[in-house]
Amino acid sequence: MTEEVYIGIDLGGTYVRLGAFDAEGNLLAIDQALIEAQRGPQAGLARIISLIEAMLDGLVAQGGHFELAGIGFGSTGPVYPETGVIDNPYTLPTWENVSIFEPLQTRFGAPLTLENDADVAALGEYWMGAGRGVKRLYAITVGTGIGAAFILDGRIYRGVTGAHPDGGHQVIDPSGPQCYCGLRGCWESLASGPAIARQARARIDEYPNSMLLEMTGGNPAHIEARQVAEAAVTGDPLGLAVMEQAARYFSLGVANFIILFLPDVIVLGGGVMDSLDLFRPALERMTADIDVMVPARKVRIVPAQLGYHAGLYGAAWSVMQKVNGTPV
Amino acid sequence: MTEEVYIGIDLGGTYVRLGAFDAEGNLLAIDQALIEAQRGPQAGLARIISLIEAMLDGLVAQGGHFELAGIGFGSTGPVYPETGVIDNPYTLPTWENVSIFEPLQTRFGAPLTLENDADVAALGEYWMGAGRGVKRLYAITVGTGIGAAFILDGRIYRGVTGAHPDGGHQVIDPSGPQCYCGLRGCWESLASGPAIARQARARIDEYPNSMLLEMTGGNPAHIEARQVAEAAVTGDPLGLAVMEQAARYFSLGVANFIILFLPDVIVLGGGVMDSLDLFRPALERMTADIDVMVPARKVRIVPAQLGYHAGLYGAAWSVMQKVNGTPV
Repeated sequence: MTEEVYIGIDLGGTYVRLGAFDAEGNLLAIDQALIEAQRGPQAGLARIISLIEAMLDGLVAQGGHFELAGIGFGSTGPVYPETGVIDNPYTLPTWENVSIFEPLQTRFGAPLTLENDADVAALGEYWMGAGRGVKRLYAITVGTGIGAAFILDGRIYRGVTGAHPDGGHQVIDPSGPQCYCGLRGCWESLASGPAIARQARARIDEYPNSMLLEMTGGNPAHIEARQVAEAAVTGDPLGLAVMEQAARYFSLGVANFIILFLPDVIVLGGGVMDSLDLFRPALERMTADIDVMVPARKVRIVPAQLGYHAGLYGAAWSVMQKVNGTPV
Repeated sequence: MTEEVYIGIDLGGTYVRLGAFDAEGNLLAIDQALIEAQRGPQAGLARIISLIEAMLDGLVAQGGHFELAGIGFGSTGPVYPETGVIDNPYTLPTWENVSIFEPLQTRFGAPLTLENDADVAALGEYWMGAGRGVKRLYAITVGTGIGAAFILDGRIYRGVTGAHPDGGHQVIDPSGPQCYCGLRGCWESLASGPAIARQARARIDEYPNSMLLEMTGGNPAHIEARQVAEAAVTGDPLGLAVMEQAARYFSLGVANFIILFLPDVIVLGGGVMDSLDLFRPALERMTADIDVMVPARKVRIVPAQLGYHAGLYGAAWSVMQKVNGTPV
């Protein structure tokens, strides 16, 4: 018997990840490689094609008969789902107006989808993760940036021209730092990993005994968000002060999603959310505060379940749904 | 021939307004009265029933045969559309858990709907106003408060438990004033009519020659938002300073709707938006600023077309759609 296999791909600025799934959503194989975007899109796409080939060969080598039923692609954006074009020279240097459908179609002849990476991560959590089947799912991924995606009735919410709304750049505090998005004090500029690291660096002179100095070999320029969180957990005053402020800003951003969308579930993922415990008290205070005008306590705020695999699940599911005639 | 007539009702804190519509959306009759909420919901509902009776009698007196096909109700919230209950002792004193379906059903036996007033105003603009038939319509009403509603594919966007999200209370500046919604510096606390008036009062000592003193008979406690806008139009420095700040805050709130929803059209209504010209420069600067990450220039920002009648149109249309089997 021939089994259908769906490939989900998650293309980030550093790594490309692949997963093979059967129609029931079982993860059959997984792989990853550096994308080395600056070597050009042609080299990058050739690498992706050979990774897919190797994955399919590996499945065959394990025995059984597999038929490639579709390839779903999630990528750091901007992306154009209709035309299969990635236009992101910002985090994928040289990837300007790159058609991914053309070479994949030529090589594999299977159905294809392309979506924003925040959208596929959210779809993954909707399909097999922390927000399975809920009517309104808001997924937030906090790492180098803040990604946000809204899944309504199992479909990606899209804005005018089909574009992906970019909730990570909502305004939270107009006296905050200038962001490349064009605004001062957007959420990403206040609560992402780099924002946390920058705050710690800026305030280190006030805390000459902070363990963060020791952790970075005396060079505060090397402070990373992960270390600030670690320092906070052990009671370091600078770590605590910075994480408290980040938690306050983070919870205000979540407050806006509650007030504006009232989702059933908000799923929190990404590296910074490994420190979710440090953010919990601020989130709980905020939820209690705003329960006056909207039923904020009815909104469940939960950690993501699929980690780095969320995008693979979501990408595979997006093409599976296309094949099934119910595109996301 | 008997013509179907639909009654749309818009219940606010001060007035109740009624409109009668035919199935094509022609406004056949209109009326309004003080609601005097504090006299109790029974008295209020009796008054509403007699206003409906008088309106129907008036139509019959004009000749023609009319059949009441439905009554659509929009009300200042919280409201419960499923059960037909208004629970708003805040702006309708004594109206706690008031069923409006029961008495109207008993008297008229016609189909009924109940929705939040911001939602029916948005529906009205979608049906017959500034956002006819667009896929994604965001309607903002700025007056004593800020109402916000999202119409997606011709239906009201509802949050968890079916509740109305309250975009007027999104956070814009956490160093702003404390609002009854539980947050500091929410949009309503910074850009509504009362916020504008409060700012002018707070800053009048810096502007001893402001015409606002004269306009209020030397008593700054009487300053109203409308007067601040008037003063700004004639070049009064205090009026200009306050309206500039309000416009800046207002445009940040609109920026968030663009970033988070990317609607096709944003419709601006309410008393404060009579001064839309004073807000235009800030809105245009903001749109240009944020066009980096999202296609902000594709979002049309337009004034409401139906004014105080928007809620009547929307309320009538909501019950018409229910009768047609396509509830909003």
